[in-house]
Amino acid sequence: MNAPIRMTTTDVPASDFVRRHVGPSPRDIDVMVEAVGARSLDALIADVIPASIRDKRPPALGAALSETAALARLRAIATQNQVFVSLIGQGYHGTVLPAVIQRNVLENPAWYTAYTPYQPEISQGRLEALMNFQTLVSDLTGLPVANASLLDEATAAAEAMALAKRAAGSKANAFFVDAAVHPQTLAVLKTRAEAIGLSIITGDPERDLDPAGVFGVLVQYPDTFGRVRDRRGLVDRVHAAKGLVAFAADPLALTLLVPPGELGADIAIGSMQRFGVPMGYGGPHAAYMAVRKGLERTMPGRLVGLSVDARGNPAYRLALQTREQHIRREKATSNICTAQVLLAVIAAMYAVHHGPEGLTEIARRVHRRAAVLAAGLRALGFAVPATAIFDTVTVPVGDRQTAILARARAEKINLRSIPAGDFADAPAIGISVDETTDEAVIEAVWRAFGGTFRYDEMAGEADVRLPAGLARTSAFLTHPVFHRYRSETEMLRYLRKLSDRDLALDRAMIPLGSCTMKLNATAEMIPITWPEFASLHPFAPAEQAQGYKVLLDELSRMLAVLTGYDAVSLQPNAGSQGEFAGLLAIRAYDASRGEPHRTVCLIPSSAHGTNPASAAMAGMQVVVVACDRDGNVDLTDLEAKATQHGDKLACAMITYPSTHGVFEEHIREMCEIVHAHGGQVYLDGANLNAQVGLARPGAYGADVSHINLHKTFCIPHGGGGPGMGPIGVKAHLAPFLPGHPALDGGTTPVGAVSAAPFGSASILPIAYTYMLMMGDQGLKRATEVAILSANYIARRLEPHYPVLYKNHNDRVAHECIVDPRALKETTGVTVDDIAKRLIDYGFHAPTVSFPVAGTLMIEPTESESKHELDRFVDAMIAIRHEIAAVEAGKLAIEQSPLRHAPHTVHDLADDAWSRAYTRSEAVFPAGVSRTDKYFAAVNRVDHVHGDRNLICSCPPIEAYSG
Amino acid sequence: MNAPIRMTTTDVPASDFVRRHVGPSPRDIDVMVEAVGARSLDALIADVIPASIRDKRPPALGAALSETAALARLRAIATQNQVFVSLIGQGYHGTVLPAVIQRNVLENPAWYTAYTPYQPEISQGRLEALMNFQTLVSDLTGLPVANASLLDEATAAAEAMALAKRAAGSKANAFFVDAAVHPQTLAVLKTRAEAIGLSIITGDPERDLDPAGVFGVLVQYPDTFGRVRDRRGLVDRVHAAKGLVAFAADPLALTLLVPPGELGADIAIGSMQRFGVPMGYGGPHAAYMAVRKGLERTMPGRLVGLSVDARGNPAYRLALQTREQHIRREKATSNICTAQVLLAVIAAMYAVHHGPEGLTEIARRVHRRAAVLAAGLRALGFAVPATAIFDTVTVPVGDRQTAILARARAEKINLRSIPAGDFADAPAIGISVDETTDEAVIEAVWRAFGGTFRYDEMAGEADVRLPAGLARTSAFLTHPVFHRYRSETEMLRYLRKLSDRDLALDRAMIPLGSCTMKLNATAEMIPITWPEFASLHPFAPAEQAQGYKVLLDELSRMLAVLTGYDAVSLQPNAGSQGEFAGLLAIRAYDASRGEPHRTVCLIPSSAHGTNPASAAMAGMQVVVVACDRDGNVDLTDLEAKATQHGDKLACAMITYPSTHGVFEEHIREMCEIVHAHGGQVYLDGANLNAQVGLARPGAYGADVSHINLHKTFCIPHGGGGPGMGPIGVKAHLAPFLPGHPALDGGTTPVGAVSAAPFGSASILPIAYTYMLMMGDQGLKRATEVAILSANYIARRLEPHYPVLYKNHNDRVAHECIVDPRALKETTGVTVDDIAKRLIDYGFHAPTVSFPVAGTLMIEPTESESKHELDRFVDAMIAIRHEIAAVEAGKLAIEQSPLRHAPHTVHDLADDAWSRAYTRSEAVFPAGVSRTDKYFAAVNRVDHVHGDRNLICSCPPIEAYSG
Repeated sequence: MNAPIRMTTTDVPASDFVRRHVGPSPRDIDVMVEAVGARSLDALIADVIPASIRDKRPPALGAALSETAALARLRAIATQNQVFVSLIGQGYHGTVLPAVIQRNVLENPAWYTAYTPYQPEISQGRLEALMNFQTLVSDLTGLPVANASLLDEATAAAEAMALAKRAAGSKANAFFVDAAVHPQTLAVLKTRAEAIGLSIITGDPERDLDPAGVFGVLVQYPDTFGRVRDRRGLVDRVHAAKGLVAFAADPLALTLLVPPGELGADIAIGSMQRFGVPMGYGGPHAAYMAVRKGLERTMPGRLVGLSVDARGNPAYRLALQTREQHIRREKATSNICTAQVLLAVIAAMYAVHHGPEGLTEIARRVHRRAAVLAAGLRALGFAVPATAIFDTVTVPVGDRQTAILARARAEKINLRSIPAGDFADAPAIGISVDETTDEAVIEAVWRAFGGTFRYDEMAGEADVRLPAGLARTSAFLTHPVFHRYRSETEMLRYLRKLSDRDLALDRAMIPLGSCTMKLNATAEMIPITWPEFASLHPFAPAEQAQGYKVLLDELSRMLAVLTGYDAVSLQPNAGSQGEFAGLLAIRAYDASRGEPHRTVCLIPSSAHGTNPASAAMAGMQVVVVACDRDGNVDLTDLEAKATQHGDKLACAMITYPSTHGVFEEHIREMCEIVHAHGGQVYLDGANLNAQVGLARPGAYGADVSHINLHKTFCIPHGGGGPGMGPIGVKAHLAPFLPGHPALDGGTTPVGAVSAAPFGSASILPIAYTYMLMMGDQGLKRATEVAILSANYIARRLEPHYPVLYKNHNDRVAHECIVDPRALKETTGVTVDDIAKRLIDYGFHAPTVSFPVAGTLMIEPTESESKHELDRFVDAMIAIRHEIAAVEAGKLAIEQSPLRHAPHTVHDLADDAWSRAYTRSEAVFPAGVSRTDKYFAAVNRVDHVHGDRNLICSCPPIEAYSG
Repeated sequence: MNAPIRMTTTDVPASDFVRRHVGPSPRDIDVMVEAVGARSLDALIADVIPASIRDKRPPALGAALSETAALARLRAIATQNQVFVSLIGQGYHGTVLPAVIQRNVLENPAWYTAYTPYQPEISQGRLEALMNFQTLVSDLTGLPVANASLLDEATAAAEAMALAKRAAGSKANAFFVDAAVHPQTLAVLKTRAEAIGLSIITGDPERDLDPAGVFGVLVQYPDTFGRVRDRRGLVDRVHAAKGLVAFAADPLALTLLVPPGELGADIAIGSMQRFGVPMGYGGPHAAYMAVRKGLERTMPGRLVGLSVDARGNPAYRLALQTREQHIRREKATSNICTAQVLLAVIAAMYAVHHGPEGLTEIARRVHRRAAVLAAGLRALGFAVPATAIFDTVTVPVGDRQTAILARARAEKINLRSIPAGDFADAPAIGISVDETTDEAVIEAVWRAFGGTFRYDEMAGEADVRLPAGLARTSAFLTHPVFHRYRSETEMLRYLRKLSDRDLALDRAMIPLGSCTMKLNATAEMIPITWPEFASLHPFAPAEQAQGYKVLLDELSRMLAVLTGYDAVSLQPNAGSQGEFAGLLAIRAYDASRGEPHRTVCLIPSSAHGTNPASAAMAGMQVVVVACDRDGNVDLTDLEAKATQHGDKLACAMITYPSTHGVFEEHIREMCEIVHAHGGQVYLDGANLNAQVGLARPGAYGADVSHINLHKTFCIPHGGGGPGMGPIGVKAHLAPFLPGHPALDGGTTPVGAVSAAPFGSASILPIAYTYMLMMGDQGLKRATEVAILSANYIARRLEPHYPVLYKNHNDRVAHECIVDPRALKETTGVTVDDIAKRLIDYGFHAPTVSFPVAGTLMIEPTESESKHELDRFVDAMIAIRHEIAAVEAGKLAIEQSPLRHAPHTVHDLADDAWSRAYTRSEAVFPAGVSRTDKYFAAVNRVDHVHGDRNLICSCPPIEAYSG
């Protein structure tokens, strides 16, 4: 078991983990309190958080447990889950995560603590891994451009629908969905379509489709019942009517089947789960999207591209960011803000590990087993249809369904129960074979159906041929990266090499504003790879998931206690999805009280772009509320806009503390204004790390919030996902939390927003373990120190850079914005120069140009030690001195180390050094330790070149010469 | 559970893991076979291995299992172990391995795949960790110099005895051992003393000791029954008689007790197990030894020292190596060849994590609990002696012993059973409290004794004072390293930083001759941290260790099959200990047949220095046998020496294939000669990786071998340990394998050689899993490819460097020696220059100057890909070209990059570059990839300076300026 060696609980002082989680020591905290000019930490907090919202009672979560005791509790919970063999399929399959990838990616902080690769120079490792992912998807689907992951197959289908709506020549308003897509996909499509006024038509596309009436079509390939059909004719008909066709395709099947791109698909989406990623009771997994040429600039999600650096060497980067929600706001192609990077990396490495021949062999084995299984069922007299299949056998069983399912469960096997009418007139059973399904499992399934064959007896009976015309002939994964790492030694070194290129939390502070890059403690990570959490199918019978039930209930209760809400939904699997779900709850609530016309969403001008993008997705009309010069919401304008829109007002979306990093004094008044006009308050939970234990949104007036578990509750950033965005709501909104067909048959006012009922369930133990180990007092302490650290940084930096947006007590909240714009005026130094120069000092850059263009936002979090905070501040001051040299006319900005940053070993080794500064000034500037220096893998990356020359799959190896 | 996510067995093609383990692809193998000029791989093997010894039958281990299936079998075995709470003590205690250390050291290949730090420039990370270990031990014991670990407490005690014998002024021949040392310590001391003709006297040193009659004394502090006694008077008396005093001390107790150094001890030894290292059914753990000033140069084991590099910067290195066995052979201070580096690193990091205040708090808690436990037992009417204790309560219980022990076991608690006479006239029970012992466990123990108190009821009754005069007052762990890493974030970064300094198998080939640095597959590592293997006490009742029994039996059987022996002992926990045990078996066999006078051990001149050192330890007389110019044993001289020593001949120790890397044709004849003169053949198993599946020592004439599991069977090198050295013997020697008091009450002809009955049991799953996943064919394949790779390298290098010692078919075995000595004549280039220059090319050096001074020995192993082999060969050739430039007079060797290697970023950043070559020639010489370059942390280390100015504990922080 992957737990610390000894599981007995101990009464280690309860504060022990809190001390491990909180960076500054008690003595450091005293020094920092003095440095910020506060009488005490309490006094500082009183300066920062308005008394009007301050919690008087501490949250009631209980005392902290030691790491050992917390893991013992997790183990006790895990034991209540039962790991059966799940052949339920429906998009989730057993898979083997190669041990070398498990240990060296999923369990390695160099991978899991990395941030989204917005700073490409320090992210070349994971960018290469994601480029591999895009190449994998592109090759498998036969489509030229793939993004680097979406959240799950169902939301990817919804994104495909939205993309089709944007790109289709057809002006129709309906989307046709093959009735044989996975039920959860259909559910999410319905939720998303309804919100923006599209209609969904379902049926058999060969029979029921009128191409003229739709802007697009989604088919599943193979379909949810396993059938493989040739859709070429369908594609032609839809194209003729100027509609688009999207395929939801199983990537393993595509190793054997003609890929969607060759069938004429415009879009392919799907889940890469079965490429080594545990089912995890539903997630997280990486979904994919690939598109035909011409659609790449309107495709949602993150896209990795190849560009060049300042030395002309190849360098990866995120491409086409200007189409994303943080730039285009409500006009964005999607509200998606995160990806599933860690899972995409795993899936890509699974393909690197197996290579095309290995993947094909796995697929062939799966297909052969399914065919043998079908042969056995036929021999038993079951009417298995003669349709071509890949891995799934669906068979009508009539009134024997219950008995067969029960006998299978007695064999510790879950099969899929299919109601009468869905597949056939009679009730049916679905059986999906995966790479872990051995011959003994097939024999056990036969026993459940009443047979006693041995596998070998049936092997000769099977029809293992794929349908004529659909057998894949095109090559895939021809790039050397999918061929070089077949030995574990080479694979291990490749993983190490990539991770060494990147700067993650395991090496240095990542002082991002608004993303709360705090400690992801090892003990929190340990339970997630236990099979009892990792190996459950999301649609496994409830009695097998009793441990999950305890975990989900407990976690929901804790989140409700901390936020002051009455109910919590754990379904949204990203903050953006939480926003969407929260807004849907408001809309449904309004509809339920007869006010469906309330569609206006007030959003302050300072808001993160995801807010308006989500509002647009929820079918709302965005109205911007002004901010005053201190960055606070202009109450007068809020009142005016609320009044103006009157009974059309649905809600206001407010980030608190504000995006500017300040606890505005008038939050209660804001809430009251919105409520007075019949609106709801959506409080963006991005900055919850400044409030936990000190103030509760649900208590000071908000109606709904999402909670970014990867920010405040320690789910690691994963290099750009997974995230989790549960929402909390007040009681009146509770009936309008997302439903899910697997839980309620699709009968709730608001339907599913994620493919799985509990989103990315398998990472929830991280947040839960964190809270267990912190307890009431520890969580409060963390918040206090996060605020202290931000104020400490602000105080130390202020003599050198203006600090924007403080409250009337001259305090910031948990982050601060420093403003070098005046320096740009005088010297030409850009915020990018500073960000890149920080790399030379051994740091990831703060958030650049958000929320204010040309500034840097810094959030130290509670987990950084005073030593690290000082190292960072010292670097910022040293950089200020370098800028001063430009101000003084000693050298031009173009000649300065600021502009040439980051410096690489390639610069150092340059025999023809002709810079205006020395090599040691370049790489060992003032205060930088000469030992253990991190060097960026590439020089400054050229973004313009990359967007102009879009390359989104692995380039030929010659591109990497040298 | 720390297993791959899905445990169901699958029928992945059996060869899958073999393909992962073996580096070259089948196609590469064809190319390599052709390159070496062989018709086929079989033909090559026939060229290499004499037909006379070649196995006709394949070994019969069975077919290979997939990783998933192998781990499922391991899990099934693990489940047969039962993890009770063990309060048995006797040197083994429950402990909490902090999760951050478990994941980032024990489970991290950057740490566990590293080699012994003989090349200090690429080993600064683990050398710093070991310096921390030495500082920890030195501070805790109050003695100025500590080594960087011994094998276990019992062998450390034996080393202390030998050191005392060497260093004492007394000429006495007896060593006095406190009867209250741990029983296994006494057993090993007896074995070791008897072998070299020393006598052991046991008793109460205060009562029974005549100082004039002994050269030294060992006391346990606190003793095995828990008693803490002031030994100052005893120390004075022994010193007055010119004897030495050694303390076996519990390091946790030393945080509270006056340290041995302050009591006058000359030597302190002990186990660091309870500093975070799992009990592991006996090991591996790091033992320690610290000595007073003046003894450091005669102390056994590895010693890390601080020196300077070529730039004058501080640099760690192994110090005083000239005293070690590979230099001094039979005159060495010890035969110890390895250490327990990985475990020493863990123990050191445990101290870095907790700091002095944390360790003291743990010790106080343990002490308080023990005192409360004692109070409860007294309240129950048990006659707990009034002696001062630390963590262990020993109480006479008379005829209630069996019942109490049984009741404790019903509570899943193991207590120590002490026979009448050992502690008191009556049978007694020992109870040792550790950091995992919570209040519930204390209450359960009381229940076993018939009490029903709650812990709180007794807490006030306890006498928690330490004896007057023995309470520690001196500070310890004052160095900043023990204070800076109290937050997990800082700790994680420290671990990452250190590991980044080092070059291990996770980054590059380590082409060591004779150490077989092959893949340590992740799947092999996974079971060792399962609690069912990690948390068992070595003296737990046999019924709780049924899983271990299966594992040990199976592994023994497999090793016997592969080596052709009849019996195997898994007790020796290092190759050196295996040699010693093997030689003892020979001596005991000779004694049993009335020939105790057989004491001569013939050893070829080419032998590794450990052979003669072991022979000396076994009380044998070493006689050197000449080798011919081809490096083969001179048969005539062997015959002559055997004849000369006649009935004094005990054995010959032969390494096969030879230390020179050749399968000598006449191995059978050698064995026959030795046998003909009544001697035994000890075949050194160091080179078993050239034979597995192809030839069996037991079948071609050898009587006994040790098997280095870390070489041939994939136990990772750990940066210099743990090793494991089981021995195999023919049937006539089987009765003379090591015994152990815990197994047999000490009744066997040969006693214990290790503290634990099965040595380092907890790492044996690695070797077992490897064999399961390879199967017969895979193991044979690995050997064949190892031989092919060596011949491939030899063939490619031969045009550039002479290759020494090939057989009559012009073949090497699994390693090859290249000889640059002629180049030294012409250019001055040293073998060190080549070794260090290889670092610039991204490689760890081959073995330098062994077995032939001035040469390099290269063993590629089967796990390196052809790509990596070629990269290495290309680097060697490029270096040859650099030497050619010196030959051509283009620059002097002193000016060349060879002499200045390795080059660091400090060199690169040097603004005043004045070398005869360019910076890019320095760091990016021909063929070196410009991406992902590894830089050594320091420049070339000055060994002479370091030995002259010995610094063996953490230097003041100022030493690291810059």
